[in-house]
Amino acid sequence: MFITFEGPDGSGKSTQVAMLVDDLRARGYAVYQTREPGGTPIGDQIRAVVHDLGNEGMHPHTEILLYAASRAQLVAQEIRPRLAAGQIVVCDRYADSTLAYQGYGRGLDLPTLRIILAFATGGLQPDLTIYLDITAEEGLRRRQQAAQDGAEWNRLDAESLAFHQRVREGYLALVAEAPDRWVALSGAGDRESIQGQIRDAVYTRLPAPDTA
Amino acid sequence: MFITFEGPDGSGKSTQVAMLVDDLRARGYAVYQTREPGGTPIGDQIRAVVHDLGNEGMHPHTEILLYAASRAQLVAQEIRPRLAAGQIVVCDRYADSTLAYQGYGRGLDLPTLRIILAFATGGLQPDLTIYLDITAEEGLRRRQQAAQDGAEWNRLDAESLAFHQRVREGYLALVAEAPDRWVALSGAGDRESIQGQIRDAVYTRLPAPDTA
Repeated sequence: MFITFEGPDGSGKSTQVAMLVDDLRARGYAVYQTREPGGTPIGDQIRAVVHDLGNEGMHPHTEILLYAASRAQLVAQEIRPRLAAGQIVVCDRYADSTLAYQGYGRGLDLPTLRIILAFATGGLQPDLTIYLDITAEEGLRRRQQAAQDGAEWNRLDAESLAFHQRVREGYLALVAEAPDRWVALSGAGDRESIQGQIRDAVYTRLPAPDTA
Repeated sequence: MFITFEGPDGSGKSTQVAMLVDDLRARGYAVYQTREPGGTPIGDQIRAVVHDLGNEGMHPHTEILLYAASRAQLVAQEIRPRLAAGQIVVCDRYADSTLAYQGYGRGLDLPTLRIILAFATGGLQPDLTIYLDITAEEGLRRRQQAAQDGAEWNRLDAESLAFHQRVREGYLALVAEAPDRWVALSGAGDRESIQGQIRDAVYTRLPAPDTA
Protein backbone atom coordinates (compact mmCIF):
# COMPACT_ATOMS: atom_id res chain seq x y z
CA MET A 1 0.00 0.00 0.00
CA PHE A 2 1.30 3.39 -1.10
CA ILE A 3 0.16 6.33 1.06
CA THR A 4 0.98 9.96 0.32
CA PHE A 5 0.41 13.16 2.31
CA GLU A 6 -0.35 16.50 0.68
CA GLY A 7 -1.04 20.02 1.88
CA PRO A 8 0.84 23.27 2.51
CA ASP A 9 3.92 23.50 4.68
CA GLY A 10 2.58 24.42 8.11
CA SER A 11 -0.43 22.12 7.80
CA GLY A 12 1.08 19.68 10.32
CA LYS A 13 1.79 17.14 7.59
CA SER A 14 5.20 16.03 8.82
CA THR A 15 3.96 15.55 12.40
CA GLN A 16 1.01 13.47 11.18
CA VAL A 17 3.24 11.36 8.92
CA ALA A 18 5.54 10.59 11.86
CA MET A 19 2.63 9.68 14.16
CA LEU A 20 1.07 7.37 11.53
CA VAL A 21 4.36 5.64 10.79
CA ASP A 22 4.96 5.04 14.51
CA ASP A 23 1.48 3.54 14.85
CA LEU A 24 1.82 1.32 11.77
CA ARG A 25 5.13 -0.03 13.06
CA ALA A 26 3.69 -0.60 16.55
CA ARG A 27 1.01 -2.76 14.90
CA GLY A 28 3.63 -4.86 13.13
CA TYR A 29 3.61 -3.40 9.63
CA ALA A 30 6.86 -2.97 7.71
CA VAL A 31 6.91 0.72 6.73
CA TYR A 32 9.18 2.78 4.53
CA GLN A 33 8.91 6.52 5.22
CA THR A 34 10.23 9.08 2.76
CA ARG A 35 9.69 12.61 1.50
CA GLU A 36 9.94 14.74 -1.60
CA PRO A 37 12.00 16.30 -2.90
CA GLY A 38 14.89 14.15 -1.75
CA GLY A 39 14.67 10.65 -0.34
CA THR A 40 17.75 9.40 -2.22
CA PRO A 41 21.32 10.72 -2.33
CA ILE A 42 20.70 11.94 -5.91
CA GLY A 43 17.37 13.46 -4.84
CA ASP A 44 19.01 15.27 -1.93
CA GLN A 45 21.51 16.85 -4.33
CA ILE A 46 18.63 17.96 -6.57
CA ARG A 47 16.70 19.30 -3.55
CA ALA A 48 19.71 21.43 -2.59
CA VAL A 49 19.69 23.03 -6.06
CA VAL A 50 15.93 23.73 -5.96
CA HIS A 51 15.90 25.22 -2.46
CA ASP A 52 19.08 27.29 -2.83
CA LEU A 53 18.00 30.91 -2.24
CA GLY A 54 20.86 31.96 -4.56
CA ASN A 55 18.95 30.32 -7.44
CA GLU A 56 16.03 32.77 -7.45
CA GLY A 57 16.56 33.17 -11.22
CA MET A 58 15.42 29.56 -11.70
CA HIS A 59 12.87 29.27 -14.51
CA PRO A 60 9.57 27.63 -13.44
CA HIS A 61 10.06 24.86 -16.03
CA THR A 62 13.53 24.13 -14.69
CA GLU A 63 12.06 23.76 -11.21
CA ILE A 64 9.37 21.33 -12.37
CA LEU A 65 11.86 19.19 -14.27
CA LEU A 66 14.15 19.07 -11.21
CA TYR A 67 11.29 17.94 -8.96
CA ALA A 68 10.34 15.34 -11.58
CA ALA A 69 13.95 14.11 -11.78
CA SER A 70 14.15 13.69 -8.00
CA ARG A 71 10.83 11.84 -8.06
CA ALA A 72 11.90 9.51 -10.88
CA GLN A 73 14.92 8.47 -8.84
CA LEU A 74 12.93 7.99 -5.62
CA VAL A 75 10.26 5.87 -7.35
CA ALA A 76 12.76 3.65 -9.17
CA GLN A 77 15.31 3.27 -6.39
CA GLU A 78 13.13 3.10 -3.26
CA ILE A 79 9.35 3.17 -3.65
CA ARG A 80 8.83 0.42 -6.26
CA PRO A 81 11.24 -2.08 -4.66
CA ARG A 82 9.64 -1.53 -1.20
CA LEU A 83 6.12 -1.98 -2.53
CA ALA A 84 7.22 -5.09 -4.40
CA ALA A 85 8.61 -6.44 -1.12
CA GLY A 86 5.20 -5.95 0.52
CA GLN A 87 6.07 -2.90 2.62
CA ILE A 88 3.82 0.08 3.23
CA VAL A 89 5.33 3.22 1.72
CA VAL A 90 4.42 6.56 3.29
CA CYS A 91 5.59 9.60 1.33
CA ASP A 92 5.44 13.25 2.47
CA ARG A 93 4.47 14.92 -0.88
CA TYR A 94 4.32 13.26 -4.29
CA ALA A 95 3.21 14.07 -7.84
CA ASP A 96 0.07 15.90 -6.68
CA SER A 97 2.32 18.61 -5.18
CA THR A 98 3.53 19.45 -8.69
CA LEU A 99 -0.03 19.69 -10.00
CA ALA A 100 -1.06 21.89 -7.04
CA TYR A 101 1.97 24.21 -6.83
CA GLN A 102 3.15 24.44 -10.42
CA GLY A 103 -0.10 23.64 -12.25
CA TYR A 104 -2.70 25.48 -10.20
CA GLY A 105 -0.31 27.80 -8.31
CA ARG A 106 1.81 28.97 -11.24
CA GLY A 107 -0.76 28.34 -13.97
CA LEU A 108 1.27 25.85 -16.02
CA ASP A 109 -0.50 23.51 -18.44
CA LEU A 110 -1.98 20.61 -16.45
CA PRO A 111 -2.09 17.98 -19.28
CA THR A 112 1.61 18.59 -20.00
CA LEU A 113 2.46 18.33 -16.31
CA ARG A 114 0.55 15.04 -16.06
CA ILE A 115 2.59 13.58 -18.96
CA ILE A 116 5.86 14.65 -17.33
CA LEU A 117 4.73 13.21 -13.98
CA ALA A 118 3.70 9.92 -15.57
CA PHE A 119 7.14 9.75 -17.20
CA ALA A 120 8.85 10.42 -13.87
CA THR A 121 6.80 7.92 -11.85
CA GLY A 122 6.38 5.30 -14.55
CA GLY A 123 2.65 5.78 -13.88
CA LEU A 124 2.78 4.80 -10.19
CA GLN A 125 -0.22 6.31 -8.33
CA PRO A 126 -0.79 6.30 -4.54
CA ASP A 127 -3.48 3.99 -3.16
CA LEU A 128 -4.43 6.65 -0.59
CA THR A 129 -3.64 10.36 -0.37
CA ILE A 130 -4.30 12.30 2.84
CA TYR A 131 -4.84 16.01 2.25
CA LEU A 132 -4.47 18.32 5.27
CA ASP A 133 -6.39 21.48 4.49
CA ILE A 134 -5.67 24.89 6.03
CA THR A 135 -6.34 28.34 4.62
CA ALA A 136 -3.55 30.20 2.84
CA GLU A 137 -3.57 32.83 5.61
CA GLU A 138 -3.22 30.24 8.36
CA GLY A 139 -0.46 28.45 6.46
CA LEU A 140 1.49 31.68 6.04
CA ARG A 141 1.06 32.52 9.74
CA ARG A 142 2.34 29.09 10.79
CA ARG A 143 5.34 29.17 8.45
CA GLN A 144 6.33 32.66 9.60
CA GLN A 145 6.11 31.47 13.22
CA ALA A 146 8.21 28.39 12.38
CA ALA A 147 10.81 30.53 10.60
CA GLN A 148 11.08 32.73 13.69
CA ASP A 149 11.70 29.53 15.64
CA GLY A 150 14.55 28.65 13.29
CA ALA A 151 12.88 26.63 10.51
CA GLU A 152 13.98 26.99 6.87
CA TRP A 153 12.29 29.80 4.89
CA ASN A 154 12.49 28.74 1.26
CA ARG A 155 11.57 30.16 -2.13
CA LEU A 156 8.06 28.69 -2.09
CA ASP A 157 7.37 30.10 1.39
CA ALA A 158 8.24 33.53 0.02
CA GLU A 159 5.49 33.33 -2.66
CA SER A 160 2.46 35.64 -2.41
CA LEU A 161 -0.70 34.85 -0.48
CA ALA A 162 -2.59 34.72 -3.82
CA PHE A 163 -0.24 31.95 -4.97
CA HIS A 164 -0.96 29.88 -1.87
CA GLN A 165 -4.69 30.46 -2.34
CA ARG A 166 -4.47 29.09 -5.89
CA VAL A 167 -2.53 26.07 -4.57
CA ARG A 168 -5.26 25.35 -2.04
CA GLU A 169 -8.00 25.62 -4.69
CA GLY A 170 -5.94 23.23 -6.82
CA TYR A 171 -5.76 20.66 -4.06
CA LEU A 172 -9.51 20.88 -3.56
CA ALA A 173 -10.02 20.33 -7.32
CA LEU A 174 -7.75 17.27 -7.25
CA VAL A 175 -9.69 15.84 -4.29
CA ALA A 176 -12.96 16.34 -6.16
CA GLU A 177 -11.52 14.63 -9.24
CA ALA A 178 -10.53 11.37 -7.51
CA PRO A 179 -12.55 11.11 -4.27
CA ASP A 180 -11.81 7.36 -3.90
CA ARG A 181 -8.09 7.99 -3.60
CA TRP A 182 -8.17 11.21 -1.55
CA VAL A 183 -9.19 11.81 2.06
CA ALA A 184 -9.37 15.54 2.83
CA LEU A 185 -9.13 16.55 6.49
CA SER A 186 -9.09 19.90 8.20
CA GLY A 187 -5.62 20.68 9.51
CA ALA A 188 -7.08 23.17 11.98
CA GLY A 189 -8.02 20.68 14.75
CA ASP A 190 -5.82 19.23 17.48
CA ARG A 191 -3.23 16.80 16.27
CA GLU A 192 -4.58 13.75 18.11
CA SER A 193 -8.04 14.06 16.59
CA ILE A 194 -6.55 14.59 13.10
CA GLN A 195 -4.37 11.52 13.62
CA GLY A 196 -7.45 9.54 14.64
CA GLN A 197 -9.17 10.41 11.35
CA ILE A 198 -6.03 9.47 9.40
CA ARG A 199 -5.83 6.08 11.13
CA ASP A 200 -9.49 5.45 10.35
CA ALA A 201 -8.80 6.13 6.67
CA VAL A 202 -5.71 3.91 6.62
CA TYR A 203 -6.91 0.91 8.64
CA THR A 204 -10.23 0.55 6.82
CA ARG A 205 -8.16 0.08 3.64
CA LEU A 206 -5.38 -2.11 5.04
CA PRO A 207 -5.33 -5.88 5.59
CA ALA A 208 -3.85 -7.20 8.86
CA PRO A 209 -0.04 -7.16 8.99
CA ASP A 210 1.78 -10.19 7.65
CA THR A 211 3.50 -11.40 10.80
CA ALA A 212 4.73 -14.63 9.22
CA MET B 1 19.46 32.92 -36.00
CA PHE B 2 19.70 29.80 -33.86
CA ILE B 3 22.10 27.15 -35.20
CA THR B 4 22.63 23.73 -33.59
CA PHE B 5 25.10 20.95 -34.33
CA GLU B 6 24.26 17.27 -33.99
CA GLY B 7 26.03 13.99 -34.57
CA PRO B 8 28.00 11.39 -32.64
CA ASP B 9 31.05 12.24 -30.55
CA GLY B 10 33.95 11.67 -32.91
CA SER B 11 32.14 13.25 -35.88
CA GLY B 12 34.28 16.40 -35.66
CA LYS B 13 31.35 18.47 -34.36
CA SER B 14 33.25 20.54 -31.78
CA THR B 15 36.01 21.42 -34.26
CA GLN B 16 33.46 22.51 -36.86
CA VAL B 17 31.52 24.59 -34.31
CA ALA B 18 34.71 26.42 -33.31
CA MET B 19 35.69 27.05 -36.96
CA LEU B 20 32.23 28.41 -37.81
CA VAL B 21 32.08 30.68 -34.76
CA ASP B 22 35.51 32.11 -35.59
CA ASP B 23 34.41 32.79 -39.15
CA LEU B 24 31.12 34.39 -38.11
CA ARG B 25 32.93 36.72 -35.70
CA ALA B 26 35.57 37.58 -38.33
CA ARG B 27 32.70 38.69 -40.59
CA GLY B 28 31.32 40.98 -37.88
CA TYR B 29 28.44 38.91 -36.49
CA ALA B 30 27.71 38.91 -32.75
CA VAL B 31 27.78 35.22 -31.77
CA TYR B 32 26.92 33.41 -28.55
CA GLN B 33 28.45 29.92 -28.43
CA THR B 34 27.25 27.38 -25.87
CA ARG B 35 26.89 23.68 -25.23
CA GLU B 36 24.73 21.31 -23.28
CA PRO B 37 24.48 20.41 -20.46
CA GLY B 38 25.51 23.48 -18.46
CA GLY B 39 25.86 27.02 -19.77
CA THR B 40 24.30 28.69 -16.69
CA PRO B 41 25.18 28.60 -12.95
CA ILE B 42 22.07 26.49 -12.26
CA GLY B 43 22.89 24.30 -15.26
CA ASP B 44 26.41 23.82 -13.93
CA GLN B 45 24.98 22.63 -10.59
CA ILE B 46 22.75 20.19 -12.47
CA ARG B 47 25.66 18.99 -14.61
CA ALA B 48 27.62 18.31 -11.41
CA VAL B 49 24.81 16.00 -10.25
CA VAL B 50 24.66 14.19 -13.61
CA HIS B 51 28.44 13.76 -13.79
CA ASP B 52 29.01 12.85 -10.11
CA LEU B 53 30.79 9.49 -10.21
CA GLY B 54 28.94 8.48 -7.03
CA ASN B 55 25.63 8.72 -8.92
CA GLU B 56 26.08 5.71 -11.21
CA GLY B 57 22.72 4.34 -9.99
CA MET B 58 20.89 7.18 -11.73
CA HIS B 59 17.70 6.02 -13.45
CA PRO B 60 17.50 6.82 -17.21
CA HIS B 61 14.35 8.91 -16.66
CA THR B 62 16.10 10.91 -13.92
CA GLU B 63 18.93 11.65 -16.32
CA ILE B 64 16.59 12.79 -19.11
CA LEU B 65 14.72 15.09 -16.72
CA LEU B 66 17.97 16.59 -15.41
CA TYR B 67 19.20 17.28 -18.94
CA ALA B 68 15.81 18.81 -19.73
CA ALA B 69 16.00 20.98 -16.58
CA SER B 70 19.44 22.27 -17.52
CA ARG B 71 18.17 22.96 -21.07
CA ALA B 72 15.11 24.85 -19.78
CA GLN B 73 17.37 27.16 -17.79
CA LEU B 74 19.81 27.69 -20.69
CA VAL B 75 17.01 28.55 -23.13
CA ALA B 76 15.26 30.95 -20.75
CA GLN B 77 18.31 32.63 -19.29
CA GLU B 78 20.70 32.80 -22.26
CA ILE B 79 19.46 31.59 -25.65
CA ARG B 80 16.17 33.52 -25.87
CA PRO B 81 17.60 36.86 -24.62
CA ARG B 82 20.55 36.58 -27.06
CA LEU B 83 18.28 35.81 -29.99
CA ALA B 84 15.99 38.69 -28.97
CA ALA B 85 19.05 40.97 -28.97
CA GLY B 86 19.81 39.95 -32.56
CA GLN B 87 22.78 37.69 -31.83
CA ILE B 88 23.51 34.40 -33.59
CA VAL B 89 23.39 31.49 -31.13
CA VAL B 90 25.44 28.39 -31.93
CA CYS B 91 24.79 25.40 -29.67
CA ASP B 92 26.75 22.12 -29.66
CA ARG B 93 23.89 19.61 -29.16
CA TYR B 94 20.29 20.50 -28.36
CA ALA B 95 16.93 18.75 -28.01
CA ASP B 96 17.53 16.49 -31.05
CA SER B 97 20.30 14.73 -29.11
CA THR B 98 17.71 13.53 -26.59
CA LEU B 99 15.48 12.21 -29.39
CA ALA B 100 18.40 10.44 -31.09
CA TYR B 101 20.14 8.94 -28.03
CA GLN B 102 17.29 8.33 -25.58
CA GLY B 103 14.43 7.99 -28.06
CA TYR B 104 15.92 6.03 -30.98
CA GLY B 105 18.98 4.70 -29.13
CA ARG B 106 17.35 3.52 -25.91
CA GLY B 107 13.86 3.03 -27.30
CA LEU B 108 12.06 5.50 -25.02
CA ASP B 109 8.68 6.76 -26.22
CA LEU B 110 9.28 9.52 -28.79
CA PRO B 111 5.96 11.40 -28.38
CA THR B 112 6.54 11.62 -24.60
CA LEU B 113 10.11 12.83 -25.12
CA ARG B 114 8.89 15.48 -27.59
CA ILE B 115 6.40 16.81 -25.02
CA ILE B 116 9.11 16.99 -22.33
CA LEU B 117 11.50 18.72 -24.75
CA ALA B 118 8.86 21.22 -25.90
CA PHE B 119 8.16 21.98 -22.22
CA ALA B 120 11.88 22.47 -21.51
CA THR B 121 12.54 24.71 -24.51
CA GLY B 122 9.21 26.52 -24.52
CA GLY B 123 8.94 25.25 -28.10
CA LEU B 124 12.12 26.99 -29.31
CA GLN B 125 13.39 25.19 -32.42
CA PRO B 126 16.69 25.85 -34.19
CA ASP B 127 16.54 27.69 -37.51
CA LEU B 128 19.31 25.45 -38.85
CA THR B 129 20.71 22.14 -37.60
CA ILE B 130 23.95 20.79 -39.02
CA TYR B 131 24.18 16.99 -38.79
CA LEU B 132 27.63 15.47 -39.21
CA ASP B 133 27.10 11.90 -40.33
CA ILE B 134 29.57 9.08 -39.82
CA THR B 135 28.88 5.36 -39.60
CA ALA B 136 28.61 3.75 -36.17
CA GLU B 137 31.77 1.73 -36.92
CA GLU B 138 33.75 4.84 -37.90
CA GLY B 139 32.48 6.70 -34.81
CA LEU B 140 33.57 3.86 -32.54
CA ARG B 141 36.99 3.70 -34.22
CA ARG B 142 37.52 7.46 -33.78
CA ARG B 143 36.38 7.48 -30.13
CA GLN B 144 38.64 4.53 -29.30
CA GLN B 145 41.55 6.35 -30.95
CA ALA B 146 40.73 9.55 -29.01
CA ALA B 147 40.52 7.59 -25.73
CA GLN B 148 43.97 6.11 -26.42
CA ASP B 149 45.15 9.71 -26.87
CA GLY B 150 43.75 10.61 -23.44
CA ALA B 151 40.15 11.71 -24.17
CA GLU B 152 37.30 10.80 -21.81
CA TRP B 153 35.61 7.43 -22.46
CA ASN B 154 32.09 7.84 -21.11
CA ARG B 155 29.01 5.66 -20.60
CA LEU B 156 27.59 6.49 -24.02
CA ASP B 157 30.88 5.64 -25.72
CA ALA B 158 30.76 2.23 -24.07
CA GLU B 159 27.33 1.41 -25.51
CA SER B 160 27.10 -1.35 -28.09
CA LEU B 161 27.62 -0.83 -31.80
CA ALA B 162 23.92 -1.66 -32.25
CA PHE B 163 23.02 1.27 -29.95
CA HIS B 164 25.10 3.69 -32.02
CA GLN B 165 23.56 2.30 -35.22
CA ARG B 166 20.09 3.03 -33.82
CA VAL B 167 21.20 6.57 -32.90
CA ARG B 168 22.44 7.15 -36.44
CA GLU B 169 19.23 5.79 -37.96
CA GLY B 170 17.37 8.11 -35.58
CA TYR B 171 19.29 11.14 -36.77
CA LEU B 172 18.62 10.19 -40.40
CA ALA B 173 14.90 9.87 -39.60
CA LEU B 174 14.91 13.33 -37.96
CA VAL B 175 16.63 14.81 -41.02
CA ALA B 176 14.05 13.22 -43.34
CA GLU B 177 11.23 14.58 -41.17
CA ALA B 178 12.29 18.24 -41.36
CA PRO B 179 14.58 18.64 -44.40
CA ASP B 180 14.21 22.45 -44.42
CA ARG B 181 15.75 22.75 -40.95
CA TRP B 182 18.45 20.07 -41.25
CA VAL B 183 21.58 19.98 -43.38
CA ALA B 184 23.18 16.53 -43.29
CA LEU B 185 26.85 16.38 -44.23
CA SER B 186 29.27 13.49 -44.37
CA GLY B 187 31.76 13.76 -41.50
CA ALA B 188 34.18 11.54 -43.43
CA GLY B 189 35.83 14.28 -45.55
CA ASP B 190 38.65 16.66 -44.61
CA ARG B 191 37.68 19.33 -42.13
CA GLU B 192 38.20 22.31 -44.45
CA SER B 193 35.84 20.92 -47.09
CA ILE B 194 33.22 20.09 -44.41
CA GLN B 195 33.57 23.62 -42.99
CA GLY B 196 33.07 25.01 -46.51
CA GLN B 197 29.77 23.14 -46.83
CA ILE B 198 28.68 24.37 -43.37
CA ARG B 199 29.46 27.98 -44.28
CA ASP B 200 27.48 27.60 -47.53
CA ALA B 201 24.49 26.38 -45.50
CA VAL B 202 24.80 29.20 -42.96
CA TYR B 203 25.53 32.16 -45.24
CA THR B 204 22.79 31.39 -47.75
CA ARG B 205 20.36 31.70 -44.80
CA LEU B 206 21.91 34.69 -43.07
CA PRO B 207 21.49 38.41 -43.82
CA ALA B 208 24.59 40.63 -43.75
CA PRO B 209 25.85 41.49 -40.26
CA ASP B 210 24.40 44.56 -38.59
CA THR B 211 27.48 46.70 -38.23
CA ALA B 212 25.57 49.77 -37.06
